[in-house]
Amino acid sequence: VTWFACAFLALFGLGVFNLSARAAELPELTPAFLSNNLFIFICAVLVIFMNAGFAMVEAGLCRQKNAVNILTKNLIVFGLAVSSYWLVGYSLMYGDPIIPGWLFLKGLFFDPAVTPEMVTDAALVPSVDFLFQAAFAGTSATIVSGLVAERIKFAPFVLFSIIKCGIIYPIGAAWIWNGGGWLKSIGFMDFAGSTVVHGMGAWGGLVGAIILGPRLGKFISGKPQALPGHNLAIATLGALILWIGWYGFNPGSNLAMDQNVPYIAVTTTLAASAGGIAAAITSQLTSGKPDISMVINGILAGLVSITAGCDGFGMVAAWVIGFLGGVLVVFSVKWLDALNIDDPVGAWSVHGTCGIWGTLAVGLFNLEHGLFTGHGLAQLGIQLVGVIAIAIEAIITGIIVWNILGAFFDGIRVTEPEEYEGLDIGEHGMEAYPEFVQARR
Amino acid sequence: VTWFACAFLALFGLGVFNLSARAAELPELTPAFLSNNLFIFICAVLVIFMNAGFAMVEAGLCRQKNAVNILTKNLIVFGLAVSSYWLVGYSLMYGDPIIPGWLFLKGLFFDPAVTPEMVTDAALVPSVDFLFQAAFAGTSATIVSGLVAERIKFAPFVLFSIIKCGIIYPIGAAWIWNGGGWLKSIGFMDFAGSTVVHGMGAWGGLVGAIILGPRLGKFISGKPQALPGHNLAIATLGALILWIGWYGFNPGSNLAMDQNVPYIAVTTTLAASAGGIAAAITSQLTSGKPDISMVINGILAGLVSITAGCDGFGMVAAWVIGFLGGVLVVFSVKWLDALNIDDPVGAWSVHGTCGIWGTLAVGLFNLEHGLFTGHGLAQLGIQLVGVIAIAIEAIITGIIVWNILGAFFDGIRVTEPEEYEGLDIGEHGMEAYPEFVQARR
Amino acid sequence: VTWFACAFLALFGLGVFNLSARAAELPELTPAFLSNNLFIFICAVLVIFMNAGFAMVEAGLCRQKNAVNILTKNLIVFGLAVSSYWLVGYSLMYGDPIIPGWLFLKGLFFDPAVTPEMVTDAALVPSVDFLFQAAFAGTSATIVSGLVAERIKFAPFVLFSIIKCGIIYPIGAAWIWNGGGWLKSIGFMDFAGSTVVHGMGAWGGLVGAIILGPRLGKFISGKPQALPGHNLAIATLGALILWIGWYGFNPGSNLAMDQNVPYIAVTTTLAASAGGIAAAITSQLTSGKPDISMVINGILAGLVSITAGCDGFGMVAAWVIGFLGGVLVVFSVKWLDALNIDDPVGAWSVHGTCGIWGTLAVGLFNLEHGLFTGHGLAQLGIQLVGVIAIAIEAIITGIIVWNILGAFFDGIRVTEPEEYEGLDIGEHGMEAYPEFVQARR
Repeated sequence: VTWFACAFLALFGLGVFNLSARAAELPELTPAFLSNNLFIFICAVLVIFMNAGFAMVEAGLCRQKNAVNILTKNLIVFGLAVSSYWLVGYSLMYGDPIIPGWLFLKGLFFDPAVTPEMVTDAALVPSVDFLFQAAFAGTSATIVSGLVAERIKFAPFVLFSIIKCGIIYPIGAAWIWNGGGWLKSIGFMDFAGSTVVHGMGAWGGLVGAIILGPRLGKFISGKPQALPGHNLAIATLGALILWIGWYGFNPGSNLAMDQNVPYIAVTTTLAASAGGIAAAITSQLTSGKPDISMVINGILAGLVSITAGCDGFGMVAAWVIGFLGGVLVVFSVKWLDALNIDDPVGAWSVHGTCGIWGTLAVGLFNLEHGLFTGHGLAQLGIQLVGVIAIAIEAIITGIIVWNILGAFFDGIRVTEPEEYEGLDIGEHGMEAYPEFVQARR
Repeated sequence: VTWFACAFLALFGLGVFNLSARAAELPELTPAFLSNNLFIFICAVLVIFMNAGFAMVEAGLCRQKNAVNILTKNLIVFGLAVSSYWLVGYSLMYGDPIIPGWLFLKGLFFDPAVTPEMVTDAALVPSVDFLFQAAFAGTSATIVSGLVAERIKFAPFVLFSIIKCGIIYPIGAAWIWNGGGWLKSIGFMDFAGSTVVHGMGAWGGLVGAIILGPRLGKFISGKPQALPGHNLAIATLGALILWIGWYGFNPGSNLAMDQNVPYIAVTTTLAASAGGIAAAITSQLTSGKPDISMVINGILAGLVSITAGCDGFGMVAAWVIGFLGGVLVVFSVKWLDALNIDDPVGAWSVHGTCGIWGTLAVGLFNLEHGLFTGHGLAQLGIQLVGVIAIAIEAIITGIIVWNILGAFFDGIRVTEPEEYEGLDIGEHGMEAYPEFVQARR
Repeated sequence: VTWFACAFLALFGLGVFNLSARAAELPELTPAFLSNNLFIFICAVLVIFMNAGFAMVEAGLCRQKNAVNILTKNLIVFGLAVSSYWLVGYSLMYGDPIIPGWLFLKGLFFDPAVTPEMVTDAALVPSVDFLFQAAFAGTSATIVSGLVAERIKFAPFVLFSIIKCGIIYPIGAAWIWNGGGWLKSIGFMDFAGSTVVHGMGAWGGLVGAIILGPRLGKFISGKPQALPGHNLAIATLGALILWIGWYGFNPGSNLAMDQNVPYIAVTTTLAASAGGIAAAITSQLTSGKPDISMVINGILAGLVSITAGCDGFGMVAAWVIGFLGGVLVVFSVKWLDALNIDDPVGAWSVHGTCGIWGTLAVGLFNLEHGLFTGHGLAQLGIQLVGVIAIAIEAIITGIIVWNILGAFFDGIRVTEPEEYEGLDIGEHGMEAYPEFVQARR
């Protein structure tokens, strides 16, 4: 309580003096200013809506006994992401160079001041850019959630998310999305974040999943066992919400309303469509039946695959890239199983495998730089550098942070009896559906 | 696999050469261009969100044992719709006349090129129009899904959807929405598609439902039996998502942002409100209690009823049209039961009956052409012609395609033991809620 | 039936003559006109989407046996709100003075006519303002729903909602949001309705909850018993939908697209984030575990707390206000329990307690009028007057209307056996999940 009181007083002090937040007198608003800011506002809302999608997909594809835990994680993660990204993340991502190319900073707390110049040259006001970027930061933490589901303690997950969104993600993202970033300067292309957001989250989560080890009963004598999701209705809903949310994620990354926005929306749609179709066909061919969890992951795979280059692919290429993403995701699930790494909802396969694929696809299919469009191998090499650089950052920081948290909390994994009974009882003292009789644990 | 490889190679080829997708140099973007394209982009997103609404309504109003099947159908249908509409549907709908008035075509694959002229005269860029129209195509297939639920095989449903969205729907829709269509030339009015989208889907589905016959146990000695939906929470959610989605469907059909957009949103809202109220009152009066599935269908009935003329009704008329839609839908369910036709979720009653009602209502209440606004019977006659023409197209093609599929797949209906056990196990090998104990099949 | 027929004929008459709904000739649409109307249209859609959020939160946090009842109430309430607000509410809220400062009116039925002047000075067209305001009216009734859940008869709830949205809410809201309202003239500030919408609904519902008395088994010898919600997955989804919907509620209250819109979205986001974090911490500290229903209510508490002053707080202040809202909501639930008042979903604590807090916070933190920003106590006093004035209006009308309804319906509470069995069977004759075996009532 004392700690709270002190923190409050400090924040109150800052709040009281944080007066000059907005410029009073602005020139007339130009049409481009109005439509750009309205557009990014809407896109930010759509990306924030993705939290609902991730929550439903992850909860639905896990078991009932861990549903409250997963839902709570997803509810709180976005609040933590916004808070830490506001405190320091935005500054790390869009600040002034400290180590040119590699590290940036511009003080604590995001500064929302609007200047008259911003209005006349049709740019975005800082608030809307912050909101859009904070929503992206939240996504990279949500992906982690899926990989460590059903066995991680609540407190270390919460702390990892704060560090991920506030420090790890913005430092890496600055390499490409800060104008002075070294990956940008070598020509790395990741339009909406196949690597910067999805890969970033997937690598951090993969490290967590390996450190945690598989869930009880997932691998018996090394053979993967089916632990089916408890509510495929909400998982389906989640996938369709994510599909919608991606119309903020990809077109919004254009950061301006122009004729490219609908084009990006179309390549995104084609890739999602093809990914779902591909996963349905692939699961039919490999397991004899169209598996709904594969269709869900196929749609998401298509979306992740198109994210890096959605602005610069031809339409047929977009469809093919999504289709291959949908095929890849099915096999990636099998590869991970073969390695005895437990990824409960397929988050690695969707965001990691297809994040890599989508980033490399820019080097193959981009209309102005791709190998298959007659522009040689150079871009493909640069894409590979970017993939590896972000992977290294996410893996190293992941190893460090997970291990520090493990030391602090006496391990990041719940006890065996708690895991057996379910994290809902152990971590939250409640059940998601207390009135429905459960068939099995 | 070989077939796959060949198809891929062909598509790769096309992708590689599909380079000139977008114009490089455009003049300054005008205010109307910006707001029109932003508006239709948003509307397209809202219409695509309707997929989540349809999935939840249909799954929620059916039985648990078929939930995975219904969810998978709804997940995959939009992907198939987009793909086939992109391949040929858009070309059939907005192409150049082959048989003037009746058949149009403009090659394979939708062409997204933006020309400078498009920007200066404030029109829509092709991509955004494609996205919006593809979402509409998807709707007409989703409606079919409801009518054939709980007994159709997965593969023939998938193929029907492809044909419906790629060929049947665009050919009929071109009659009114292609500038050279014969229904347009005689003055048929269907602003947002009560007949073109909803009627189109409902007739095709009705043919399927009749060919399939009723579900096991639906009619015992000709008397309809209640087969209650398994999850009314998600069905309610679905209805409210569809309500939201309709703000893309109806206002978006204005195809430009102007002062009519909010007006259309208001008539749409009044009709939905009145439809829900009417169905609650009607079910109270006919069965003694307000039935939630009727309130859901009443809201949807109000929305379908207003769709054809949402731009040209007075507000009181809009409310009344929605109200009558909500009354009609309750009786329509009873009529279909009396005919021993099994429509598991009331899709015919919502989209067919109210699609007809809404289309005819234009001839009664339209402010400039309606009988009750003093403009004679002419428009009502034209509306009837349009309703019948689309019905004939949808019924004949439905009979042909369902029968061909039946011949190909040894019938389109699952076996009796599979239907009894549920399509989730039979078609997908999984359950939607494997941990909740089921009371009955 | 006769009554229906007469009502129809009357409405038909009005519909037929309601011809001059829209202006035919308008000058060229200005950029500000286009973006303002598009923006408010989108915000209205987001606010209407909140109905889905409220439905899922309320149903999820109540017991399974009352789910159909809650879902039906939420489905029908918005239709009733729109209809009554259209009939008379908008006229009472934005009409001409009858008793200057206190009572306004401008005939029956909202008038949608657009004049050329509206276009040239960049204002909103009447339809879009109506739609946005009607969605707000619906919110105030939905809040009531939560407070009276699980024990109220369906018919009196429906009638209360009509009166609330059509008469009680608009009369009080006119005091501040009609240009001639007395609360506006004394300088009361409630930007998006912490008091006008949320307080208004919460006070009316609180009166209902007290008149109804607690649910069977809620208090045993005065000690509160846990009656856990039946479906925390949909409750979580509902909270995230409400979060999204608030981006229509708060930024939309700016009533124009400008640089303040994103700023308001950011303060709203920070408050929601902090509210969720605060409630998680507070429930951890007070009960030993992070309670998901508290996190849900904490997020909503943060949102309600920021609503009154979201346009005029510094960012740190916004975070702190949300955080304190999240703390308050946890204790408010305990206070209400201590008073043996039964608020099944915490609606009073979210909308009442935090509505008061948020309104007073304007007097403390507003950058131009707040005590803590060096502007003295005057505004805080005015805020208190506004809170009390709306409370008095909502309480007195609540007492009158609930008691009249009670006299009419032989009490507004269902019978004890019906409540024990559940309102789904008693009021609707159906169950929400008929196939899942229930563990307990």
